[in-house]
This record gives sequence, C-alpha cells and structure tokens, in this order.
Amino acid sequence: MGRVAWLPYTDLADAEAHLGRLPEGIDVDFFTDEDATGDEVRWPDSVAEVEFLVLPYLSGSRGLGRVAEMPRLQVVQSQMAGYEHLVPLIPEGVTLCTGAGIHDTATAELALALALANLREIDVHARNGADATKRWQRWFSRSLADRRAMILGYGRIGHAIRRRLEGFETAGTTLVARHERTGDLGAGEPYVHPFEHLPELLPATDVVFVICPLTEQTEHLLDAEALALLPDGALVVNVARGRIVDTDALLAECASGRLRAALDVTDPEPLPTDHPLWTTPGVTITPHVGGWADAFTPRADALIGSQLRRWAAGEPLRNTL
Amino acid sequence: MGRVAWLPYTDLADAEAHLGRLPEGIDVDFFTDEDATGDEVRWPDSVAEVEFLVLPYLSGSRGLGRVAEMPRLQVVQSQMAGYEHLVPLIPEGVTLCTGAGIHDTATAELALALALANLREIDVHARNGADATKRWQRWFSRSLADRRAMILGYGRIGHAIRRRLEGFETAGTTLVARHERTGDLGAGEPYVHPFEHLPELLPATDVVFVICPLTEQTEHLLDAEALALLPDGALVVNVARGRIVDTDALLAECASGRLRAALDVTDPEPLPTDHPLWTTPGVTITPHVGGWADAFTPRADALIGSQLRRWAAGEPLRNTL
Repeated sequence: MGRVAWLPYTDLADAEAHLGRLPEGIDVDFFTDEDATGDEVRWPDSVAEVEFLVLPYLSGSRGLGRVAEMPRLQVVQSQMAGYEHLVPLIPEGVTLCTGAGIHDTATAELALALALANLREIDVHARNGADATKRWQRWFSRSLADRRAMILGYGRIGHAIRRRLEGFETAGTTLVARHERTGDLGAGEPYVHPFEHLPELLPATDVVFVICPLTEQTEHLLDAEALALLPDGALVVNVARGRIVDTDALLAECASGRLRAALDVTDPEPLPTDHPLWTTPGVTITPHVGGWADAFTPRADALIGSQLRRWAAGEPLRNTL
Repeated sequence: MGRVAWLPYTDLADAEAHLGRLPEGIDVDFFTDEDATGDEVRWPDSVAEVEFLVLPYLSGSRGLGRVAEMPRLQVVQSQMAGYEHLVPLIPEGVTLCTGAGIHDTATAELALALALANLREIDVHARNGADATKRWQRWFSRSLADRRAMILGYGRIGHAIRRRLEGFETAGTTLVARHERTGDLGAGEPYVHPFEHLPELLPATDVVFVICPLTEQTEHLLDAEALALLPDGALVVNVARGRIVDTDALLAECASGRLRAALDVTDPEPLPTDHPLWTTPGVTITPHVGGWADAFTPRADALIGSQLRRWAAGEPLRNTL
C-alpha cells in the first residue's frame, strides 16, 4: 500500500472529475460529509494509514474526531478560511493547511449582492411580491453609484470586493486594515489606512464593507461610538464575523431609521428566530452563506489538487500557518 | 421678459441647488410633478411664453397636455430615455431632446443587483426572514463567477453593465446587438455579434442581460424557441421592456425549474396581482424601477443644466432625435 490520502469526494471517478488524474504512488480513500449540513462524517477504514487528510467542507472540528487514531498523519488540509477551531485539535508535528483563498470569490460576490439588494431594496420588493396586496409598488431607492465606500479589513477578500466595486461609479473606495500600508506592495496597490484612522474616515463613508478577521482588536470595532460617526443613511455590510459589530448598537441605529444593514453574519449565530433584526426595516439578512455558492467548488478543487500533487512530490505546501 | 424656460424644480433656490447658477438673459418658471406618482402636473402661468420646456420626470405625456397653447415653444427636453409616447405630441418645428444616458447608471446597477440577488437567492432569504418558521435556513446557491454572460442589446446601458461585470470573474461576456460591430469603434470596444448569431450563442450563455430597445425586430426576440436554446439553469435578466421576452414561454421554462428569471419589466405591466410569475420559484421581480434610484438626480441635473446653457448660448443641443 502506498501513502494514503483521504479526499472529500465520493469515489475515484468523482475525485478524478474534480481533480483530474491523481498523482502516481499514492492510495486514496474517500472522506465526505454524511449529509449536507455536516452533522455526521463517514469514516474510511484506513484510519491507521492516512497521512494526508482533506477535511470535508462542512465537517468542522468533527472531521478531526478520530485524529488520535492516526499515527501516520502528516497534513490536515481544511476547506475553511478560519482555523481557530481546528488548531487545538492538530497533533504535534502535523501540518495544518487552511482553505484561505478558496472562498474569496463567493464571499466578495455576496458582499456586492447584499449591498446592491439592500440599496435597491430587492429584498423589500421580494417580500411585497409574496403578498398579493402589495405587488408592483414603486418608489425611488438608493444607488451604489456616487456613494463613498469603505473596505474595513483590506486583505484578499477585500481586494476581491474592491475589484467588483470598480465598475459601479462609487465616489471612491477607502481601504482600511490593521496595519497602514503605503502602497509599496506593488501591483498597483493603493494606500491602506490603519484602524486608528476610523474616527476621521467613518463620517465620510456611505457603505462600509466589513471583512476583517475577528480578533481581540476587531471585536466590536464598530461599536455604538463608531456607528454614530457614520452619516445618516449609511449602510453596514458585514460578511466577516458578527461580533466585529455591536449588534445592539447596530439594531438601535437601524430601528431609528438612521442606518441600514446587510448582514451575512450576526451575533449570536444562528440569529434567534425572535431577534428583532429579522423585522427591522432597512436590514437585509442572509444566513452566513458567504462561501456557499458554486464558485467554491472549482477553487477548492484547484487547491486540493495542487496540495495533493505537492505532497506526493515532496514539495512545500501552500496555506500553512 | 427674457426668453422663458420651465425647469422641473420647485423654486429658484431648488433649481440653483441642482444646476448651479442659471445662465444670464433667461427667465425661468417651475414645472413639477404634482405628486410622486406623477398623476398631476402643476402648470406655471407662463404657458404663452415658454420656449424651453423640461418635462417633469414622471409626467409622461401629461407634461405635453397644454402644448397647443405654447406658440413660442422651441425645445422639449424629456427626462425619459424612451420617446415613442412623446413624438406624436410634439408640434412641427419643435425640437424633442431625450433623456438618453441619464438612466444608464441606475439601470445597469439594477441589472447587476437583480442577477446577483437571483443567483445568490437574496430574495428567497428575504422571504424566509419574514416568516418566523423559516429563518436561518442555509443552502448552496449559484455564483455569477464562472458563468457565461451575454449582453443582449449592446448600447450605452449594455456598456455600463459590461463595466460592472468586469470584476466578477465571469467566464466571459458575449455582446449582441442589432448590427454586427467588428471592434473598429475604438476605445477598446470588442466584437459585437448581430442578433442573427443568437441560435449559436444562446446554448453557451448562462446569464443573459436583456437591454435592447423594443422594436418590431426585438419583440419576442426571446421566444419559446430561443429560450429553449439556453442551457439548463440559465438566468434571464430583463431591464429593457417586457415584450422582448415571450412571457408565457418564460413562465413555462421557470415553472418547470429549467430556467430562472430576474425581471424589472414584464408583459403586461404592471404585472397583474394574480399573475403566476409572482409566485414561481426562481423568479425575482422588481416593478420597473431600473431608473428609480438616486443616481438619476445628478445625471439628470447635469443634462438639464448643459442643455439650458447651450440653448441660452445658441449652441447645438444634445440628445436630439
């Protein structure tokens, strides 16, 4: 038996449909989510042999539930961008590789979808369309054009959001991240403000795209005081983590009609069924589906295939911590 | 009294807030929609004097209701892109100028908003969010990324759609218009297919943006036969005119689950309250609000101000027929 890799596909034909021809000299087993919500995982028989383990996308930390029985394990390849929940479970000497990058396209796309749907009130029209007494009601709405955008947390997904904003005739896009970057990164990268500039920047921001990682520094980065600095009518789009925004403060600002919100993530999550955000005018909610679109699949396949070939050839892996 | 212009603002201060300082040597009166739906117009007293008449945005042909009493009329400036309803009412020797261009931004933006909302199912999540028994339901949806786009009717608004698509990682955008254009227009304009190529192009199209004018040639351009050429799961986005698509054929394709639709325009219009499109899965509807967003105002002001200055200075007007 060769070196064993577990792949998140149903069988060899499925794996080759996703990855192309597999590298020589390795054996593969198939490790999938038992169902679409990932409540269960299906364990292959080769637990004692597996060296290269690709976690099923929706398995969360359940995919590491038998890691103590894997003496030959070398590499854990996750399909998630976040990894905090996995790190404590990785045995010493095992390399954890993240899924950083494979969600950028779908998440940036949802950020634009949420902003546009909220501003143009597609969600309100959808609800009216479901009610026969409210159909074909017309009113003027807001444009993304001419509004001042901010990307709060300018990294890979922020860059993907910025690219998508370029065609929309905004009144400029301000970039903000943990560290100031002065445009010396090449590739036409512009100036990036540090978080410390937010008090001066927020009053000149109409649409803020929140896409920073959740850290001690970013928890409640948009608190009541920061939200109060946004101008009337400003829109908060959050596709990062709910706790970066103070939900109570945001709710109060939206309930008064002063701010608007388009949220793929909330605090807490799932958002409780009786939470007032669900019914506050000007608030658009999707249930944390930033990466849940079919753009994910070819990008995940490309990473898995590349990592598998690198591992088989003894080359350095990408996306290591 | 100088030469008289009617402007679609409430008073001089409002007009100057929109246009800046008015040209010398003209008198102005103020001609507005009586209410937001344009059911009435408010007639100034200077009917016998007016030479330059800007129609209130929502007045439709009502804004020309007293044109027979305007012996000095020289110019009618509309704020609509379409003009078929106005042409029969314009007296001989009077110049009609359209609002072509001032709706491009808002309409192209809505085209993207509709496509993204439909593919990422923001509308379905919005309806679920309104129902306490359906909140926070998650599933995989479709991406705009990797899909093959077509702009059917590549003119000014089509160009604005194309610019907005550029950041979204589509699998290319095919351009189609009445006449073939071979890229000799400069400004980086690529090849534009003629309508005659549609039978070869539609099978390779996942998202078709319909934005051609309604003419004899384009009425039912997307009929049952054309729609049947689209691949399974394709999305029809219509921000042009409802009659360009055969509504019954589109409804049948959506009701079977084979195609999807995102429609700002329908046939008939308003869409009747009991029309099955309202409740067909995969169909997103907005009530003909392509231009109804605040991006309209500065662009309308810029055209009106420019035309007023040209007229006052005796220079040639833009947007003449």
